[in-house]
Amino acid sequence: MAKLTKNHEPKTNDRSITSRREDFSQWYLDIIEAAQLAEHSPVKGSMVIKPYGYAIWENIQQTLDRMFKDTGVENAYFPLFIPESFLKREAEHVAGFAPEVAVVTHAGGKKLDEPLIVRPTSETIIYDVFSRWIQSYRDLPLLINQWCNVVRWEMRPRLFLRTTEFLWQEGHTVHATQAEAEGRVKQMIEVYRDFVEDYLAMPVIVGFKSESEKFAGAVYTLCIESMMQDAKALQAGTSHMLGQNFAKAFNVKFLNKEGQEEFGWQTSWGVSTRLIGGLIMAHSDDKGLVVPPKIAPIQAVIIPIWASEQEKISVFNAASNLVADLEAANVKVKLDDREGRPGPKFFAWEKKGVPIRVEIGPKDVAQNSVVMVRRDTRDKQTVKMAGLGARVAGELEAIQKNLYQRAFDFRTKNTREIDDWDEFKIILKDKGGFIMAHWCSSAECEAKVKTETKATIRCLPFGQPAKGWSASGGKKGQCVVCGKKSSSRVLFAKAY
Amino acid sequence: MAKLTKNHEPKTNDRSITSRREDFSQWYLDIIEAAQLAEHSPVKGSMVIKPYGYAIWENIQQTLDRMFKDTGVENAYFPLFIPESFLKREAEHVAGFAPEVAVVTHAGGKKLDEPLIVRPTSETIIYDVFSRWIQSYRDLPLLINQWCNVVRWEMRPRLFLRTTEFLWQEGHTVHATQAEAEGRVKQMIEVYRDFVEDYLAMPVIVGFKSESEKFAGAVYTLCIESMMQDAKALQAGTSHMLGQNFAKAFNVKFLNKEGQEEFGWQTSWGVSTRLIGGLIMAHSDDKGLVVPPKIAPIQAVIIPIWASEQEKISVFNAASNLVADLEAANVKVKLDDREGRPGPKFFAWEKKGVPIRVEIGPKDVAQNSVVMVRRDTRDKQTVKMAGLGARVAGELEAIQKNLYQRAFDFRTKNTREIDDWDEFKIILKDKGGFIMAHWCSSAECEAKVKTETKATIRCLPFGQPAKGWSASGGKKGQCVVCGKKSSSRVLFAKAY
Repeated sequence: MAKLTKNHEPKTNDRSITSRREDFSQWYLDIIEAAQLAEHSPVKGSMVIKPYGYAIWENIQQTLDRMFKDTGVENAYFPLFIPESFLKREAEHVAGFAPEVAVVTHAGGKKLDEPLIVRPTSETIIYDVFSRWIQSYRDLPLLINQWCNVVRWEMRPRLFLRTTEFLWQEGHTVHATQAEAEGRVKQMIEVYRDFVEDYLAMPVIVGFKSESEKFAGAVYTLCIESMMQDAKALQAGTSHMLGQNFAKAFNVKFLNKEGQEEFGWQTSWGVSTRLIGGLIMAHSDDKGLVVPPKIAPIQAVIIPIWASEQEKISVFNAASNLVADLEAANVKVKLDDREGRPGPKFFAWEKKGVPIRVEIGPKDVAQNSVVMVRRDTRDKQTVKMAGLGARVAGELEAIQKNLYQRAFDFRTKNTREIDDWDEFKIILKDKGGFIMAHWCSSAECEAKVKTETKATIRCLPFGQPAKGWSASGGKKGQCVVCGKKSSSRVLFAKAY
Repeated sequence: MAKLTKNHEPKTNDRSITSRREDFSQWYLDIIEAAQLAEHSPVKGSMVIKPYGYAIWENIQQTLDRMFKDTGVENAYFPLFIPESFLKREAEHVAGFAPEVAVVTHAGGKKLDEPLIVRPTSETIIYDVFSRWIQSYRDLPLLINQWCNVVRWEMRPRLFLRTTEFLWQEGHTVHATQAEAEGRVKQMIEVYRDFVEDYLAMPVIVGFKSESEKFAGAVYTLCIESMMQDAKALQAGTSHMLGQNFAKAFNVKFLNKEGQEEFGWQTSWGVSTRLIGGLIMAHSDDKGLVVPPKIAPIQAVIIPIWASEQEKISVFNAASNLVADLEAANVKVKLDDREGRPGPKFFAWEKKGVPIRVEIGPKDVAQNSVVMVRRDTRDKQTVKMAGLGARVAGELEAIQKNLYQRAFDFRTKNTREIDDWDEFKIILKDKGGFIMAHWCSSAECEAKVKTETKATIRCLPFGQPAKGWSASGGKKGQCVVCGKKSSSRVLFAKAY
């Protein structure tokens, strides 16, 4: 049985959840509260991740960590504090991050000679270290990842999506050649795509960021973009080609096979606790959270129903056999053995998004059956007790697929190819969603879209049409804003 | 095969290791460098934990995390920053920690209204949150753990042992009764004892801290104390009974079964990356690191030896069969398939403390045997290839036991009962080690010992003589300093 007891137990007296249609933002906050995922802390902008939310993060971490290690990456740990002077060495980087950093000026009872920045990201401190770790091509590739907290001061914090402090991983690699580094940038965005699609059941579009949206200091940035249920975009992960920009600023050099000194080619890539915000907004409904089975801390909950003490004994007896059966089928199962009526328990576990609920009462025991309820469809079926473990395991797979397909279909329905500027504006105003439109590559047209519609270029999708976007990928056309030539459509959307 | 490749590969050109006898402190630093565990960072007092050192930490984390969860504890995450006013609410606590905190005064480009403390420990921020999580006795016990980084400004940093930033876990619990809280304090120090003895192979003495050495804000502190190879003590973990001190400061109240409001009874407990410093100093030798098998990232390394290309093929063929055999026996095995002479490889893996080395050359292949070398004893044996997996697994267990026994015997040899003050001083000056001596319980005598000998009271051992200390535990006697009555011996030692 999942060792997730006390603090994962739902409260049964929560207030009701605002509907998505009524107020999507409030719905999001209500889901987080109802499912006990996180809450605001007394420190403005920082959040407390509650046990049930943290258990989801642990599952994300464990899965990604294994995927990273399978590509040869190793974990390490670098300092939280960065000397202010380090941040300034890469010009674009400091311009991007300086406005949002937290600064330690005093420590150990004294004013510091040089202020320390609380890391907003760790390129600078890590590459200073890398400059000493690397001597020759034999030390390459260097493939390092770090799981840690970072701080970026937020004026308008939003749980999981934008918080002053958040948890993430940041991968940092150094390669002997540009081609190899670019291969790694691509490889890691594909790892993220696989993870987000396969585990979080969120279909994504993979592509390049525009110049104005790329990581501060990168040559280019790849990203995965997912659609939320309000048809807005969420950037779910990024992978940056850093070229030799930081290598030159931090002197990351190696001797090549010919004995000549060269600068290394670098990449960095990361995902964060923001993914939890994504999975909430991609799948949950007006009844509460919906967690994809592959990432759920509890995959099935068994709720015994009884009236008399005698009934209780026989029901609990049968229920504990079911627990064993489900565990044998590798299902993370919890028996809700608390006192109290079943109704509020159903309601409460529904709010927490447990994929499958199994109800078992005296009649079920007599008939050797149980009632199985799916969280995603709310379908209710009477199924035999014998073989329940395998049956639930199969149903979990079906739920996982259904969540992905549902999100995929929603995205398809809300993705449009638009060629007319007025229509572009009307669609964004009235319907939102993803717009695939031609763009001339100018920063001016990009800025005009942002100013007039609040939409941004989410990405320049890879040459091959992304799954689910029936694109005229490589076809030429005219910029939707200025009418100049464009070689392919890009993805516009309002975003989180 | 252990996915621990590139960065775990030892460098073969390191300088030699200072002997323990010559300079223990330098030896310690040399081991850390030779085994590539960690290094100083450009930020004074902060360290970089390198991949091989971090892999040891990951093993520590995974094992402890499972042990915590088995006792019903769940993980969560709380903010890095603590409002300065929070720290001040518990008088002893702020007195203890204020001198060593780092302070954020500016963020987001502005001076903050209230400075933020970078957490040195999280009692204050967590208990403020707990005050809102807990309403009634039904919410208790609340059993929470957090894995995170903390910051305590260090004037004299020392890798792993004392660094400005370190990684740790901090458990925080709230209970309805004093007895239950005290039970948890005891339970967690026993979890630490089990872990440190069973996995790190370091025998410990469990006991109470004296008033002057307890946690700032606690009613009392339990600790585990281990002896290093220079006969000094290392505190390896602590568990604090907080009573209602913090509950009163942070208003952690609950309604009891009778509907009356009561303050909760609290505990906190933690271990840190300092454990890695402990295992280095407990087991390593002048050849390099020695890692207990149960915590080793790589438990066995296979080193193929060949001259001709033809030999290489047959040796590698046999070696890869051995890898499969060892993996089937759940041994974390690495094949060192790099080019180069075997000698430097032996030397290098020895420095990294891999418990077992398997050498295989053409003659071995012809005889269906290999040479197996133990890192702890450096014993060399020729053993059959058939069944090597099981043989190595058995040998790893033997190494684990031997490391514990060796440390245990060393501690026994260096633990003395002393009843004379002059002898006490001479022993500490000439031999060091643990001294079991009577003490009258006065802070004055405790302070005098510290001033005159630099030794401190490491703990008041539990009533039952700790394993390996042939104590006259409960026997009465006279204080070794002042001659006043004492009810039992306490443990004095110089400490890290």
